[in-house]
This record gives sequence, C-alpha cells and structure tokens, in this order.
Amino acid sequence: MDLRLEKQFDFLREIDKEKLIGRQTYLADASRKENDAEHAWHMAIMAYLLREYSNREIDIAKTMMMLLIHDIVEIDAGDTYAYDEQAHLDKREREEKAADRIFGLLPEDQQKELRDLWEEFEAWETPEAKFAHTMDNVQPVMLNDASNGKAWVEHGVHISQILKRNARTAEGSEALWEHAYSNLIEPHIGKGHIMEDRDNS
Amino acid sequence: MDLRLEKQFDFLREIDKEKLIGRQTYLADASRKENDAEHAWHMAIMAYLLREYSNREIDIAKTMMMLLIHDIVEIDAGDTYAYDEQAHLDKREREEKAADRIFGLLPEDQQKELRDLWEEFEAWETPEAKFAHTMDNVQPVMLNDASNGKAWVEHGVHISQILKRNARTAEGSEALWEHAYSNLIEPHIGKGHIMEDRDNS
Repeated sequence: MDLRLEKQFDFLREIDKEKLIGRQTYLADASRKENDAEHAWHMAIMAYLLREYSNREIDIAKTMMMLLIHDIVEIDAGDTYAYDEQAHLDKREREEKAADRIFGLLPEDQQKELRDLWEEFEAWETPEAKFAHTMDNVQPVMLNDASNGKAWVEHGVHISQILKRNARTAEGSEALWEHAYSNLIEPHIGKGHIMEDRDNS
Repeated sequence: MDLRLEKQFDFLREIDKEKLIGRQTYLADASRKENDAEHAWHMAIMAYLLREYSNREIDIAKTMMMLLIHDIVEIDAGDTYAYDEQAHLDKREREEKAADRIFGLLPEDQQKELRDLWEEFEAWETPEAKFAHTMDNVQPVMLNDASNGKAWVEHGVHISQILKRNARTAEGSEALWEHAYSNLIEPHIGKGHIMEDRDNS
C-alpha cells in the first residue's frame, strides 16, 4: 500500500500548483482575477446544482471530477485565454505533454482513469463532457457579468468572438445557454462592455 | 423556471466570495496562504483519489459535494484557525446564522439539501462525514509538511495540539491517519517545526 499511497500523495502535492495558474476572468467583485483551482471549485458546485438543466442525463460524480481535474494540464501548459488565437495553435500538443507528466505521477489505474476523463472532456462527445463544457463557458460569463464586464472591456471583446466561443454551449444545456445569453451577455452589448460587430443588428 | 434559475445563480454568485476567505495553511511552495475555495477543490480531488482507504464504503459524489460546500458558511463567519480556542467558542452560532442566509438564497429543495449536507458534515456521524473530516484534517497536514512546517513554526504549534485536533481523523480512515502521522507530522518534531510537549517522549 505504501508505494501506492506515496504516488497518490505525490500527485496531490503536485496539483497544488494549479492554485498559481491565473485566468483572465475577474472575481464577481472585480478585486482580482481568479485562478484555475478556484474556477474548478466553482464549476463543480455549479454542475451539481444546475444538473437538472442538462439536455441529457449525466453521472454527476463523473462530471464533477472531470471539471475538478480538466485544467490540471495548465500547470505545465499555462492557461490559454479563450480569445488568444495564436496560443490555441499548439495548445493540444502542450497539454498532452503535461497530461503525460502530471497524471503519470499516479498509480497506473488512476493514471488511466484521470487521463481518460480528461480526454473525454476534450473530445466533447458524451453528455458529461458536453455539460462540463457548458459549465466551463457559463461560469466565466457569470463572473464577467457580475464584475460589470471588466474582462470583456479590458480585452476589447466582440460579440462575434463570444458567440464563436459558445457555439457548442447549448449542446450541454439549451436552457442554460439561453439564460446566459439573454441575461448575462446581451445586456453588456447595450452597455458597451461587449463590442457589436454583427451585420443588421 | 426563470425564478428558480435566478435563485440558483444568486447563490452561485454569492459563493464566489469564498475565494476571498483566507486560511492559515501555506501552499506547498510556501509562496502564500491558500483560501477556502482552493482548499475545498483540493480536498474534493483528494477524496475521489483516496476513497479506497475509507474505513467504510462512501457515496463519493455526496462526499465531494460535502467537501466543496462545507466552508461556505465562512463567507459570513470567517475562518476559525484550528488552534484558536477563543474563536471556537461561538463558532457554531456564527456559522448557523451564515448557513441560514447563504443556503437561503437557493430554491427551497436545494436549500434543504445543502443545509442537510452541511449539518451532516458538522455532526461527524456518517461514513461520508467521517471521511470528509479526514480530508479536512489531512489536506492541511500535507501542505504543512510540503512547505517545511511554515505554518506550524509561525504559530508555535505543539504536538499535543495536533493530536487533539486529529483525535477523530482515524475514524474516517485509519490508513490515512497512520500515513499522515508517520510521514507528514512526526518528522517535523525532530526538525523542530512542531514542539514536543508530551511526557516521556
């Protein structure tokens, strides 16, 4: 048991670094930006409380664990901002190397389990992965709205970028995407926090 | 649906404040102290990966959610440091008021569900609550060890205080308590990071 437990603790110590990976999203009170661990914590609770809106039935423990671990690769690969197109080009390669190293700290069975869970999230095919992506897109929108669009303004974000980023958000939950668009995004176009760049609008 | 969803989002926005509640534990690299949201994220993953060591079988989704939400009351009540005996006197009263207000933001069914989950944690009776407490005690010990005992040294902590604090840790998992004591705590007595105050030792 001891070697197994040592490996598990090695992994648990290593992922502590996720608390130091910064994101571009501000906290609701706009006092500072959040980090990956805080983001994951928030989304896991969100998934549990909002699972009734999932388009399809989901295994909630699996969805929560997927959300809790899906950004661990950023310990090596860094956070890639949603609207940084250049950084997205080699994102997959950077993240795969990170997954090899970090999940590789675990005993083999758990290494495989977490790697599979991460790959499932990335593949965006199962109900759990689709709902997890909905959380991953709606949580920052909720905070951007609460912080009066601060991150959108700082990055000069256009509505077309947000819509492209959210092209698949409704696949996890139509109800949550509709709510997010109408209540958390659209009002910020009128306020000038998000730039309008669509024709005939 | 909309009023229900509004309430759920009100709660999800409110708990964002947990990211601002500081703890006394340093991150593994000792660069800064962690906050409640980071602590909860870390413990939920820890519970999932270490559940095989639970003395009794546990519902893992329930245990994870319990860990993710159990410190939410500290948004109003503040973090009570493990070795601050004065602050522990009115802890329960402060936390109950906080639970009323914060869980009260949710729709009634979820209000009851989360309140029950929090009370279950506090009551320390079910296998899930016992294992959650084991996580709540072992996670900071893991970080204190990794950060070379920094928090123990700063607070001048004695081994008797640690043993009192951990009097029930083994109820959730004997294996984890044994490992934690032998590998993460005891070596720091020899190093002078934890003060020895037992007789005949």
